[in-house]
Amino acid sequence: MLPIFSYPEEQSDFQRHLSRSVTFEPEVQRVVQDILSDVAQRGDVALLDYTEKFQGIRPEAFMVSQEEIEQAYLAADRAFVVVLEEAYDNITGFHRHEIDKSFFYEAGNRVILGQRVTPIERVMLYVPGGKAAYPSSLLMNVAPAQVAGVKEIFITTPCDDNGNVSEHVLVAAKVAGIDTIYKFGGAQAVAAFAYGTESVPKVDKITGPGNKYVALAKKEVFGHVSIDSIAGPSEVVVIADRHADPEFVVLDMFAQAEHDPDAAAVCITDSAELAEAVRLLALEKVDTMVRSEVIRKALTANGAVVVVRDMAEACEVSNMLAPEHLELHVRNSWEILSDLKHAGAIFMGDYSCETIGDYYAGPNHTLPTNGTARFFSPLSVRDFVKYSSIISYSAQELARTGERIAAFADHEGLQAHAEAVRARLRKL
Amino acid sequence: MLPIFSYPEEQSDFQRHLSRSVTFEPEVQRVVQDILSDVAQRGDVALLDYTEKFQGIRPEAFMVSQEEIEQAYLAADRAFVVVLEEAYDNITGFHRHEIDKSFFYEAGNRVILGQRVTPIERVMLYVPGGKAAYPSSLLMNVAPAQVAGVKEIFITTPCDDNGNVSEHVLVAAKVAGIDTIYKFGGAQAVAAFAYGTESVPKVDKITGPGNKYVALAKKEVFGHVSIDSIAGPSEVVVIADRHADPEFVVLDMFAQAEHDPDAAAVCITDSAELAEAVRLLALEKVDTMVRSEVIRKALTANGAVVVVRDMAEACEVSNMLAPEHLELHVRNSWEILSDLKHAGAIFMGDYSCETIGDYYAGPNHTLPTNGTARFFSPLSVRDFVKYSSIISYSAQELARTGERIAAFADHEGLQAHAEAVRARLRKL
Repeated sequence: MLPIFSYPEEQSDFQRHLSRSVTFEPEVQRVVQDILSDVAQRGDVALLDYTEKFQGIRPEAFMVSQEEIEQAYLAADRAFVVVLEEAYDNITGFHRHEIDKSFFYEAGNRVILGQRVTPIERVMLYVPGGKAAYPSSLLMNVAPAQVAGVKEIFITTPCDDNGNVSEHVLVAAKVAGIDTIYKFGGAQAVAAFAYGTESVPKVDKITGPGNKYVALAKKEVFGHVSIDSIAGPSEVVVIADRHADPEFVVLDMFAQAEHDPDAAAVCITDSAELAEAVRLLALEKVDTMVRSEVIRKALTANGAVVVVRDMAEACEVSNMLAPEHLELHVRNSWEILSDLKHAGAIFMGDYSCETIGDYYAGPNHTLPTNGTARFFSPLSVRDFVKYSSIISYSAQELARTGERIAAFADHEGLQAHAEAVRARLRKL
Repeated sequence: MLPIFSYPEEQSDFQRHLSRSVTFEPEVQRVVQDILSDVAQRGDVALLDYTEKFQGIRPEAFMVSQEEIEQAYLAADRAFVVVLEEAYDNITGFHRHEIDKSFFYEAGNRVILGQRVTPIERVMLYVPGGKAAYPSSLLMNVAPAQVAGVKEIFITTPCDDNGNVSEHVLVAAKVAGIDTIYKFGGAQAVAAFAYGTESVPKVDKITGPGNKYVALAKKEVFGHVSIDSIAGPSEVVVIADRHADPEFVVLDMFAQAEHDPDAAAVCITDSAELAEAVRLLALEKVDTMVRSEVIRKALTANGAVVVVRDMAEACEVSNMLAPEHLELHVRNSWEILSDLKHAGAIFMGDYSCETIGDYYAGPNHTLPTNGTARFFSPLSVRDFVKYSSIISYSAQELARTGERIAAFADHEGLQAHAEAVRARLRKL
């Protein structure tokens, strides 16, 4: 568990050790494609059939009733409701900063060019169920959609053997003002909302994490609807110098590792002493943790401490990994920020632990995983709007530029394009 | 060709007439998957083998030489170079308005939250070749990537039987300051840039239109790299009132139709006279067009004139179609803008024909097709950046809120998450 590597000497070793493949097995692909086409054709019946087949339950109602939501809310621990409310306010507050404005500008000669930002109308937010029923996921998906102005927000989350949905998720839904909650999970839920059924509305966009069946189903329906991104195994990188507290480093790595045996946690440090201290403390503490088995598996398969010669190298290694979560346990984290190129979220200093970002601070916890921070971004208000260009051309400017534009079309061999311009020039 | 429908009476008829499916045949899927895994494994050799197999040419060089670019530029019609330069300036100018700024704010108690915007490092822009070799596509893909600050921009475009790339594309590349042009097309080109080969760099994002093999290859590699969107068949909707000029309407519909037999062109009008005039003029003019055969096929399969009772209904019908291009040939186009919910680009008034937007005005011509304007957007600077959250929490704020955050983690059953917070609280 948690081997130590030296950089740059052992670069290829730790890169091999840390590489996690995200290919979907052909069998999973076949299953998902069958589910998608079957739900597209048979609608509600197929949705119920697959739910019975995979979860052993055929829910009597498609949706959670208002009474179920109210009951969960009334029964909830008041302190939990308060923290959910605070988190929801913080998340909403952060996402308000992301709102893109429509713009226009006058380009001269009475030409007006612009871009209009409008909300997507109808979205489905997938909230995982079972052991991974996370009320925080509901808040993190709902808030940016609401800030964007999405009118119709639907949640779906798998129900349990009794046809009930996680009470914590219902409380979070109540806090966020959402009462359209469906009881389905898996690829069949994605299919139902991508194509629509008798009882499930067809939506424009599907977001939220899920298992590999959900991830693959989202990828398959992409283009037919929009999706956020493909969630893969999750990771944290902690860059630490000799001032770092080994206990904070270890617990933050454990917090990532406890999610999933595929999760990865890497400490990068310029201090050989800290590297050793982190490794020893991790070995010592792991058995005391509630989810010790998952943590041990994750840190054995995808855990590492990388010893570098200086902070510049630490940033280099972090950039190679392009981590979902990046914590900077260093003297002055702002000093190295500019050297860090790729990360979903960057946690500055000893007191900014990932847990704060997962639940409470405000930025989204749905982040690009497994190195995709090179090109993907946190879930945001931008995911819930669309943009339209506005082009208002004037007769004057067409008179000035029209013949050149028509000649451009001629060069591409598109005569009707050119004629559309020349017909106007003739009438000016 | 171009049947007339009445709305709302014949709504289901014209919706059936206009529906275009975008499913990929299983045979195409199989071919694309084979190409992807073969190029991933065999690299350059597989890339060359498939190019020889599908295009009948095994290029001697992977890239266009600087001499080839210079020669194309020197041999080019000067007027064409000038219009390319003007278009490039206009496109760059428009996209500068899209730049998202990094932000931060102080959330109280020394907490700093923010979001950082950084360019994607390495992108490949696919430019179709052969008969559809469009220099405008090169400009429209390159400009937003450059404005975003992308450092490494690679173009790939299929070469002809002699191993040469379209001279017009090379001239456009020279105008845009791009000299890294590869000679490959098809799914094999997408595979090479998604996985990297001995001679082709692995990139972070792939954008640009292509045939169905290219579109499916992009969808398959999504997640491994980022892509822009899945390009499908293209369309225009013209909303026209009795003031509209039938010749402008017809030529704009022809301009869309001449691209492709799958292209769609729809006129929506509240004037039965205009509807009849558009239909008759289209029938009369189609044989005079250079690409009359393509236009006739497209307008027979996917052309329509829809007669509505008023402009409110015209907007309703347009919203159902969510067109890629939407032209408003009406007395006051700004008056109905707010009723139009979904469109890739909106062209205001008689003189704003699509051709101007395709080549010259500035907004991107890569637009969401086939109804996907409900949730997709024009290609933009946003496609070439990524966002990272910044969370800087203070000891003071952790002392105030930490126990609540830890309790939230307890509710999700994630003990290490809670412990990471409590360890810090113990040391405060």
